[in-house]
Amino acid sequence: MAIIFSFPGFESIASHIASDLKITRGDMEIRHFPDGETYVRLNSPVEGQQVIIICGLDKPDQKIMGLMFFAQVARKMGAKSIGLVAPYLGYMRQDKRFHDGEAITADIFAGFLSQIVDWLVTIDPHLHRHEKLSEIYTIPAAAIHASDHIADWVKSNIARPVLIGPDAESSQWVSEAAKKAGAPFMVLSKIRRGDRDVAVSLPDVATYHDHTPVLIDDIISTAHTMIETVVHLRALSMRPPTCIGVHGIFAGDAYDRLMSAGAHRIVTSNSIPHKSNDIAIEDILATAVSAMIKNNHSHKG
Amino acid sequence: MAIIFSFPGFESIASHIASDLKITRGDMEIRHFPDGETYVRLNSPVEGQQVIIICGLDKPDQKIMGLMFFAQVARKMGAKSIGLVAPYLGYMRQDKRFHDGEAITADIFAGFLSQIVDWLVTIDPHLHRHEKLSEIYTIPAAAIHASDHIADWVKSNIARPVLIGPDAESSQWVSEAAKKAGAPFMVLSKIRRGDRDVAVSLPDVATYHDHTPVLIDDIISTAHTMIETVVHLRALSMRPPTCIGVHGIFAGDAYDRLMSAGAHRIVTSNSIPHKSNDIAIEDILATAVSAMIKNNHSHKG
Repeated sequence: MAIIFSFPGFESIASHIASDLKITRGDMEIRHFPDGETYVRLNSPVEGQQVIIICGLDKPDQKIMGLMFFAQVARKMGAKSIGLVAPYLGYMRQDKRFHDGEAITADIFAGFLSQIVDWLVTIDPHLHRHEKLSEIYTIPAAAIHASDHIADWVKSNIARPVLIGPDAESSQWVSEAAKKAGAPFMVLSKIRRGDRDVAVSLPDVATYHDHTPVLIDDIISTAHTMIETVVHLRALSMRPPTCIGVHGIFAGDAYDRLMSAGAHRIVTSNSIPHKSNDIAIEDILATAVSAMIKNNHSHKG
Repeated sequence: MAIIFSFPGFESIASHIASDLKITRGDMEIRHFPDGETYVRLNSPVEGQQVIIICGLDKPDQKIMGLMFFAQVARKMGAKSIGLVAPYLGYMRQDKRFHDGEAITADIFAGFLSQIVDWLVTIDPHLHRHEKLSEIYTIPAAAIHASDHIADWVKSNIARPVLIGPDAESSQWVSEAAKKAGAPFMVLSKIRRGDRDVAVSLPDVATYHDHTPVLIDDIISTAHTMIETVVHLRALSMRPPTCIGVHGIFAGDAYDRLMSAGAHRIVTSNSIPHKSNDIAIEDILATAVSAMIKNNHSHKG
């Protein structure tokens, strides 16, 4: 028996998964007191059940206490296990000590999450120096990929696409999506001339002047990299590019700045609720959750 | 050997304690990335040392990840122990399950802090249903009192004071401070007629018309209770009251609303940085920290 709860913003994904897997949709309340403290209440019984909570971990500091409170009260109420669906997984970027004395937050955060929940499902986590989540997570952790859905979106929406990865790190997302979309692709490389002076090198683009450039990256946060690339492509007289991010964080006014820079359109998956969401990932989340609840993991703490 | 670090806003308290106890003042960096994630770096060596971190836990969700990262990197760097000085301790108010399914955040938060640090010093925590911190904290935890300092402040600043506690819960702070200030006091009682309709009963005040009323409470958050009391005292033609809070949270525009309601002045301790701070508590913090480092607690995790 399983029951799925949702943090604010993920209600429709939770309902979709509940209906796909024929499991109960749980009701919870989460809010903040005027002094900033978090209040959590579970309104559905969870005794003996596999509890699933969907909570995206963008802006993780704002949500992590609520998630800890949720998990602990669910355990207190007799939950058999607690699984976390985090469509976006935070704290994956500081995966190394770049300077003495730095906290490697990727490791510490993973250790903490591994203590409070029993399994994790996420989409395209920012794995860079680590190859797999199991290097930092001690609980079963599934990283599923949005590349099929991105490829499908490109095929349905762009007539003659050329996929472009704005930097070497993005090549994993772009090459995969290009293969699936049957489209050509290029990966640009950044040439760092100094702290703030970054040039973008571009292979010969003449071949693709009648194609629509589709920039693809895993995360659009400040959008610095995307903006730089859009400006560069426009300078080379390429068509206004469509920008795709698996995860659209859009720090501050990043969305507007990227549009102003010359993007034709910005598209993201619904891993983080935003008006740019046009790639639905409920079905792959449901499949991954289904596998987790079949394995019936229980709490080891 | 001990070294003391500070979160933003507590630098001067940290320096004061360091100089009182003749210990080293450590240097750290804490900031937020544009996506909201927290970055922490320790710039002073801590190997083999008793590490002390001062971090007030008002708006706890904004700080707790940073505190966890700090503690973990300090351990990684060989700290012998990590002690937390939280002039204000958050999550003390939900100390009971008022409704089924509620997370008792006081207990869960205490359990979590007990995991990440080795001892705790705080000022006047909001102990209500729990009598002592040791009922919820599994680490050595000292709750020190600001009542002497409040009494001193009243004696030095108010000619003919009458101390007033706005509700029964506040009586512990008021009676203690009144005794030490050698001043008369009254404790008001709330009469709840409904969810939003709360009247305040007041003993005969005629005796105190030539006194200055001094309202005292542990926390001023929304200031609802204080405002209500100020309005009531003004209606009874008492002098404009001075309002003292040990901890001034001042959610939203609470400070301005309390002044507009007719407070003569609002005074708080420097447990939470605010323009109303006029009662310095560095010396009692230093004494409590001194006792903790003499006991030389080490990590049990």
